[in-house]
Amino acid sequence: MDELSRLLNEVAAGALTPAEAETRLRTMAGAGYAEMGHTKLDLDRRRRRGVAEAVFAAGKTPQQVLEIAARLDAAGQNVLCTRVTQETADFVRAARPDFEHHALARILMKRNERPASPPGGTVAVVAAGTSDLPVAEEAALSADLMGSPVERVYDVGVAGIHRLFGAADDLLQRARVIVVVAGMEGALPSVVAGLVRAPVIAVPTSVGYGASFGGIAALLGMLNSCSGGIAVVNIDNGFGAGLMAHLINAVEDRG
Amino acid sequence: MDELSRLLNEVAAGALTPAEAETRLRTMAGAGYAEMGHTKLDLDRRRRRGVAEAVFAAGKTPQQVLEIAARLDAAGQNVLCTRVTQETADFVRAARPDFEHHALARILMKRNERPASPPGGTVAVVAAGTSDLPVAEEAALSADLMGSPVERVYDVGVAGIHRLFGAADDLLQRARVIVVVAGMEGALPSVVAGLVRAPVIAVPTSVGYGASFGGIAALLGMLNSCSGGIAVVNIDNGFGAGLMAHLINAVEDRG
Amino acid sequence: MDELSRLLNEVAAGALTPAEAETRLRTMAGAGYAEMGHTKLDLDRRRRRGVAEAVFAAGKTPQQVLEIAARLDAAGQNVLCTRVTQETADFVRAARPDFEHHALARILMKRNERPASPPGGTVAVVAAGTSDLPVAEEAALSADLMGSPVERVYDVGVAGIHRLFGAADDLLQRARVIVVVAGMEGALPSVVAGLVRAPVIAVPTSVGYGASFGGIAALLGMLNSCSGGIAVVNIDNGFGAGLMAHLINAVEDRG
Amino acid sequence: MDELSRLLNEVAAGALTPAEAETRLRTMAGAGYAEMGHTKLDLDRRRRRGVAEAVFAAGKTPQQVLEIAARLDAAGQNVLCTRVTQETADFVRAARPDFEHHALARILMKRNERPASPPGGTVAVVAAGTSDLPVAEEAALSADLMGSPVERVYDVGVAGIHRLFGAADDLLQRARVIVVVAGMEGALPSVVAGLVRAPVIAVPTSVGYGASFGGIAALLGMLNSCSGGIAVVNIDNGFGAGLMAHLINAVEDRG
Amino acid sequence: MDELSRLLNEVAAGALTPAEAETRLRTMAGAGYAEMGHTKLDLDRRRRRGVAEAVFAAGKTPQQVLEIAARLDAAGQNVLCTRVTQETADFVRAARPDFEHHALARILMKRNERPASPPGGTVAVVAAGTSDLPVAEEAALSADLMGSPVERVYDVGVAGIHRLFGAADDLLQRARVIVVVAGMEGALPSVVAGLVRAPVIAVPTSVGYGASFGGIAALLGMLNSCSGGIAVVNIDNGFGAGLMAHLINAVEDRG
Amino acid sequence: MDELSRLLNEVAAGALTPAEAETRLRTMAGAGYAEMGHTKLDLDRRRRRGVAEAVFAAGKTPQQVLEIAARLDAAGQNVLCTRVTQETADFVRAARPDFEHHALARILMKRNERPASPPGGTVAVVAAGTSDLPVAEEAALSADLMGSPVERVYDVGVAGIHRLFGAADDLLQRARVIVVVAGMEGALPSVVAGLVRAPVIAVPTSVGYGASFGGIAALLGMLNSCSGGIAVVNIDNGFGAGLMAHLINAVEDRG
Amino acid sequence: MDELSRLLNEVAAGALTPAEAETRLRTMAGAGYAEMGHTKLDLDRRRRRGVAEAVFAAGKTPQQVLEIAARLDAAGQNVLCTRVTQETADFVRAARPDFEHHALARILMKRNERPASPPGGTVAVVAAGTSDLPVAEEAALSADLMGSPVERVYDVGVAGIHRLFGAADDLLQRARVIVVVAGMEGALPSVVAGLVRAPVIAVPTSVGYGASFGGIAALLGMLNSCSGGIAVVNIDNGFGAGLMAHLINAVEDRG
Amino acid sequence: MDELSRLLNEVAAGALTPAEAETRLRTMAGAGYAEMGHTKLDLDRRRRRGVAEAVFAAGKTPQQVLEIAARLDAAGQNVLCTRVTQETADFVRAARPDFEHHALARILMKRNERPASPPGGTVAVVAAGTSDLPVAEEAALSADLMGSPVERVYDVGVAGIHRLFGAADDLLQRARVIVVVAGMEGALPSVVAGLVRAPVIAVPTSVGYGASFGGIAALLGMLNSCSGGIAVVNIDNGFGAGLMAHLINAVEDRG
Repeated sequence: MDELSRLLNEVAAGALTPAEAETRLRTMAGAGYAEMGHTKLDLDRRRRRGVAEAVFAAGKTPQQVLEIAARLDAAGQNVLCTRVTQETADFVRAARPDFEHHALARILMKRNERPASPPGGTVAVVAAGTSDLPVAEEAALSADLMGSPVERVYDVGVAGIHRLFGAADDLLQRARVIVVVAGMEGALPSVVAGLVRAPVIAVPTSVGYGASFGGIAALLGMLNSCSGGIAVVNIDNGFGAGLMAHLINAVEDRG
Repeated sequence: MDELSRLLNEVAAGALTPAEAETRLRTMAGAGYAEMGHTKLDLDRRRRRGVAEAVFAAGKTPQQVLEIAARLDAAGQNVLCTRVTQETADFVRAARPDFEHHALARILMKRNERPASPPGGTVAVVAAGTSDLPVAEEAALSADLMGSPVERVYDVGVAGIHRLFGAADDLLQRARVIVVVAGMEGALPSVVAGLVRAPVIAVPTSVGYGASFGGIAALLGMLNSCSGGIAVVNIDNGFGAGLMAHLINAVEDRG
Repeated sequence: MDELSRLLNEVAAGALTPAEAETRLRTMAGAGYAEMGHTKLDLDRRRRRGVAEAVFAAGKTPQQVLEIAARLDAAGQNVLCTRVTQETADFVRAARPDFEHHALARILMKRNERPASPPGGTVAVVAAGTSDLPVAEEAALSADLMGSPVERVYDVGVAGIHRLFGAADDLLQRARVIVVVAGMEGALPSVVAGLVRAPVIAVPTSVGYGASFGGIAALLGMLNSCSGGIAVVNIDNGFGAGLMAHLINAVEDRG
Repeated sequence: MDELSRLLNEVAAGALTPAEAETRLRTMAGAGYAEMGHTKLDLDRRRRRGVAEAVFAAGKTPQQVLEIAARLDAAGQNVLCTRVTQETADFVRAARPDFEHHALARILMKRNERPASPPGGTVAVVAAGTSDLPVAEEAALSADLMGSPVERVYDVGVAGIHRLFGAADDLLQRARVIVVVAGMEGALPSVVAGLVRAPVIAVPTSVGYGASFGGIAALLGMLNSCSGGIAVVNIDNGFGAGLMAHLINAVEDRG
Repeated sequence: MDELSRLLNEVAAGALTPAEAETRLRTMAGAGYAEMGHTKLDLDRRRRRGVAEAVFAAGKTPQQVLEIAARLDAAGQNVLCTRVTQETADFVRAARPDFEHHALARILMKRNERPASPPGGTVAVVAAGTSDLPVAEEAALSADLMGSPVERVYDVGVAGIHRLFGAADDLLQRARVIVVVAGMEGALPSVVAGLVRAPVIAVPTSVGYGASFGGIAALLGMLNSCSGGIAVVNIDNGFGAGLMAHLINAVEDRG
Repeated sequence: MDELSRLLNEVAAGALTPAEAETRLRTMAGAGYAEMGHTKLDLDRRRRRGVAEAVFAAGKTPQQVLEIAARLDAAGQNVLCTRVTQETADFVRAARPDFEHHALARILMKRNERPASPPGGTVAVVAAGTSDLPVAEEAALSADLMGSPVERVYDVGVAGIHRLFGAADDLLQRARVIVVVAGMEGALPSVVAGLVRAPVIAVPTSVGYGASFGGIAALLGMLNSCSGGIAVVNIDNGFGAGLMAHLINAVEDRG
Repeated sequence: MDELSRLLNEVAAGALTPAEAETRLRTMAGAGYAEMGHTKLDLDRRRRRGVAEAVFAAGKTPQQVLEIAARLDAAGQNVLCTRVTQETADFVRAARPDFEHHALARILMKRNERPASPPGGTVAVVAAGTSDLPVAEEAALSADLMGSPVERVYDVGVAGIHRLFGAADDLLQRARVIVVVAGMEGALPSVVAGLVRAPVIAVPTSVGYGASFGGIAALLGMLNSCSGGIAVVNIDNGFGAGLMAHLINAVEDRG
Repeated sequence: MDELSRLLNEVAAGALTPAEAETRLRTMAGAGYAEMGHTKLDLDRRRRRGVAEAVFAAGKTPQQVLEIAARLDAAGQNVLCTRVTQETADFVRAARPDFEHHALARILMKRNERPASPPGGTVAVVAAGTSDLPVAEEAALSADLMGSPVERVYDVGVAGIHRLFGAADDLLQRARVIVVVAGMEGALPSVVAGLVRAPVIAVPTSVGYGASFGGIAALLGMLNSCSGGIAVVNIDNGFGAGLMAHLINAVEDRG
């Protein structure tokens, strides 16, 4: 944080009294975010967390999304907007055709940088059913933008578990992290985690009806898994799973 | 119902006026249960349902359990008391050493009759973990007393699903009905039902902790199964599952 | 599974080394499903479960429903799509007028085969109120397509229980399995199960208001029934009840 | 309220200025309750509500229960203590052997007065199972002490509904109010209310297990009854049901 | 039930053998309801319950509502349809301008009869806020149609409790039954019941936001009232409260 | 209350007998509210509570909002309508252009008076995210209209907690009361309260998705704060927080 | 924070280079808490929040409570331990007879200091029922120890609301803050807040049974109050309410 | 799996016909678990998952725990029993004094092997309060036994967030994975994750009271974190967090 260094140098140089410095240290703001009126954009996050702040577009106007995305882009950071409606995507892309729109995943993004040393492992994204694809794609695209190689296996729910073993056994053994996306009873992460060595990030989806209660059944199923080696993110939180998977995939950087 | 026949015969014989008969028909009680003060024992149930009334011992005094069980026995029907504490079992067996006590299953029972034409099929009882055995045994002993052949496969949860396939594949393909007992995330019925032709009765148990909420997680997992061919009974309701399985096993009697 | 037989024959014939066979056995996919990009259609399910995979249309595009249904039809299996909107039905039938649409039940279907030895018993479908008919019809049409004879009794809720006894007593005694559909307090399965010998599949519906909580009241009522001989499927899950009833009706095939 | 009359007479007599009267009116306490330190006993309740205040003993010390009961007795009002433990009952009766203890109903009571014009109708108390008797007896004894004639019908749950029709049809048609007590799925009030003209007070009990959730299943079943003519009190609130039934039975006093 | 009398007379006359009569008695339907295909209209309810069956219009087509209402009218019974949308009301009234529509209460009705001996008491309907009026009016119009005199007091919530005392004290003391309608915290029934002798029927409404959870907060508040003399109906169930109030108001008929 | 004084003076003057006065005192309404048919407007609230009644516009027609607002204005009190839709705002302002509309906060207001001795302290309104602004503005404008000085700090959620310390440390130490508005996990009030001396009013918002359950997660987080010095209002209840903050800010008036 | 001043003085004096200072500033711990192994006691809290840290004794061993309390005492701060069992109290007082034990409130305390300028107002603590006294006393003793004058009014629930008006009207108008403690339906804060000018801190208690769900009913009632001017703390959190009330009472210190 | 190789070699050698091999392949069990009657111990788990099966002692008898632990030990695998009561620990250690007992963490363990290439990174275990230590220690000891270096920081909850920054900043930046354990509002993971680059495993605990609902408040707070980079395990599931953290710490092995 340059401002801190500068301040301390001024104290050493006698340009600032200790008392003045104390006051400024206690109230110092400045560094680390861009004040945009409606938003305090956390430009420092990339330094602290290794990935840029993402924009959760739900509840923001198209104009706000455009302004925040443009500000991130101007700072040379990756741009990742999630939960983007078609209307917002059209509005933003009219001004910024250089942003990509992935309609199924409801993502608007632009890649401006890649990790200096990209993670050596692979993130596997596994989805139980066709209706889980929007969430699975949100996870996959997020991890990919952050710099992790991603491979997908879709529609391998436990009602026909042979589909999983047939299609994915090699990948499951090879992946460094596995994101498993499932709605309804949410049993797929338990079965997968029972077979592999990689940590499993489980994402419950709101797919289902009746007593699925908008994803609560799947969420509880995943939290209570008898398999171990599973941790869970919020219902439909594909982005959170992609971020978590990437952070895990990149841990050796800090070993 | 003999009383009805008799009444109508009396009308035909002129021994009863139609008006008198109407009054008696509207208020007729009598047949079908034994009035015991604290209980109206439903002795007619065996005729209506094919199995005798069972005694839910929780919330009854040892003396009440003894009286009801003795009354069923005197009527020549099978005696099945569930949720029997050790204290109640000791009390009852002091008076009636001919009753069997199964401590793990919390059952007190006596067999007085078998179905004339026993069901031709087998009821498989499958349990996910060691802690699920009391509920599984309640199911198995209940179905057995009613007359169904029962086979058991225990501790085959999805964390090591190879144990299921190794131990039970032949039985699962051969059984006419399968009872699957599981706590925690309750995923086992989904996996089993995806592989077999038999109807699956799923029994959630209160085994688990934290967000298992006393069996709610398992219950929701089973209700939301993507596999189909599953129906669910109440949490820890081994007796209900055993009864349901026996009724299914015996359906051909009424084809 | 022909592929397995073939592989083993090749090993016996020396056309395949044991090591090669081991690798292929461990990764073998192929058999059992059709890879359709968005979907891995479980064509093997009919062999495993005795009934073809059904298509849950909610959350799928009309084009996807059409493709999956057509693929099932091409395989000579029965086609059953549930939760079909009018829009999807119109789209599919424009291309495939040979598919039947049942608007009340929200079902699109085509019968391509019947069981070699049809079940000898009857499935009774009982509904408490007029508003429960969509779910009841989903159950009835599903069981019928799978090959079970179905009879219906509708609008016989417990507020005027004489309607049930009047209309349905003979059927209830005669049926091999009874599906009971009810919303609000969900008391009808308890009353029916107290009177019959057949197993009862209870289907809670989301019919109700206020503290019915979208079917939770009915679901809890059914799970806690004091009658026994009842098992429950998910709220509004008519298809699941029809499938379960058919599997029960067909159990003697595997005696 | 004598104090008010007196005050106004003093104003008229000039013994009190209007300003003084206004102050006293705004702060007047006194009338209507007995200050006992730990309790402000509502001695005015009998005048306002027609029945004396009852003592909810749960959470009170035996000494407090004794003091409050003695104070009510001294005022010549009926004494009714509910949820009385055996320990409290023994303590109170050591000092006051004139109080009756009903152990099953957990009630301690003394009758000091009867209504001048007792209600002309009968309160029927109906219970579904043996385990519901403590709550049913609490209702019956409460209504009886307040002055209503009470008749009981116990163990007539819907699993064997013929027991209800046999034993109680005449009473149900004749009663002026019906209290129906049931746990588990709580279906009995719906069935009863469908057959009678009297208002039904439904009391859910915490009897049950698993997904009965301490009486929630029964509560929801009763609130969602399709029958109409039912209103519900809190889980296990026998006293509340007895009070409500008595108030209804006594309505004609205020015609 | 004329059919029963006739049958018994035929037995007495020898026109029917007892065996034939027994068969017919066991399967007899006919009496008591009108089979309309989509509905079994319970025309016998007026005899059993003292009031005609009401029509819950939610989930029924305009055509069905018209047919059922017309059938009730043809039987000379009162017509009361609740939860009627504007669209349904317009459709029905185009064919039957003799039906009244109350838009605020969402009621469509026609009075065809009054009780021979109308109840002597008054039903008071009290509402806490302006937004509770639709439910309060549903209660008031229902009780009025059934034959009870009704008086209303609206917008007297506890935030300004002086409005209640000012406007309604005389009515509250005079009424034979009081219906209290409230949303949000649902405290009004507790305050009212603490002051009066009449039984109170509490109706929680879904008015509120945030942690009111669609009326759950009000429902729980009413069930847990410390006042006693309160019983509760389902959330927003104005009709149920009106019916219950009328049944209470009419109890002396059966004294 | 003038009416009371007058009445007592009449008694003193002999113009009214004590008995007549007693009757009128017991039924006296009049004072304190304006009867408007659909509404009993609580004009006395300003005297009792120090602030005028506010109008919760949700569930009221534009015409009703206009009438109530105009009535408050005519009484010379401040006008504050919350949850005002654009449609209602347009309708009211067509008739009354002197009312201000704040669209983001959904508020329609007019200031007619200020406290004689305005509070000496400042109310700080802190919001965690951009999507929380409507609720935060409702709080800020409400407190401001009542007479409290308000300062705002927005978008300082705990994901980048340095934004809070940078922007707001001085204000947080200086404010007399702090309103903290947050959705999702609702952690911000805990962090703020750990650092300051002022009481914190926490407002959970319904911002979030999945397991936020419309604000329940934030509500529970705030109720369970380990920090102390926090009290909570209903989900999204910005007005309630503003009112509470103003009452606290003004407490010294009553010291 | 002396350590910070010292560090900056060292930089100014050249005894520390800016780089060394930066490192130490980023990792500096030391100041503000006492490391006790099992606990990091927050001795700085009195400076930040105006009141010393309190000790939540639940889940701590008697030895730990003794050590922490002694450490606070040694620092000259007030000692306040809540949720103290009799066993812990005996253990601590054996070593430290100078600590007071209030058994009803489950508090162990020692006063070491009073505010320099004590708050000028009064905190009123109002409780609905006798069973709410432990929570009410926890609130009253906490606020008293912190330096606020406290007055109590107990057993004034809404079932006999005249007790409140009689006993407390003057106090309620005079108090600067009002803590209202209630279980069951939790209606008392709504009634009180409708009558006064002071902010109301509502404390739901777990007193109740059945559908009170351990205080949820009261909590929801308070959060949904129609009265305004109410904020809520956690169920049974008397300490939290006392602290909040004291902070409010002391706000003018920071005007 | 040697058995598979052997079988295929026998086919190749003509010692087994393809048909016989097919039958044996379909029913082959044997490999991978030890049948112990009450338990099928998953000895293959270490190969599949990289860590040995752990023993969840809750719900098992001391004798069963001893047998399973001894069987694992005999196989040369690490022994880790969680949720061990003092009674079970005493029983087991009487027979096997070579097992270590950690009473606070409720763990019984024996280390038999270490990873060939131990993970290069550190697992930080952070706990919010003293009462969270049992869960935190369960996590720390589990990860340590599996082979990960572990460092602990305890009692750094957000009520005095300076304790976290003081004690732990260096560790948090240096750790490869961070486990954060917190009860009550569960805000600590959000604050930590906002500051670091490492993935955070959040563990809600059941520490709290009132509306913490046994850990639900903390669980929801963690699932809804605005910080990202957090995944959650079940309430009180220290073992699950330790396992997940170790698997993450060891991911580079499979890069």
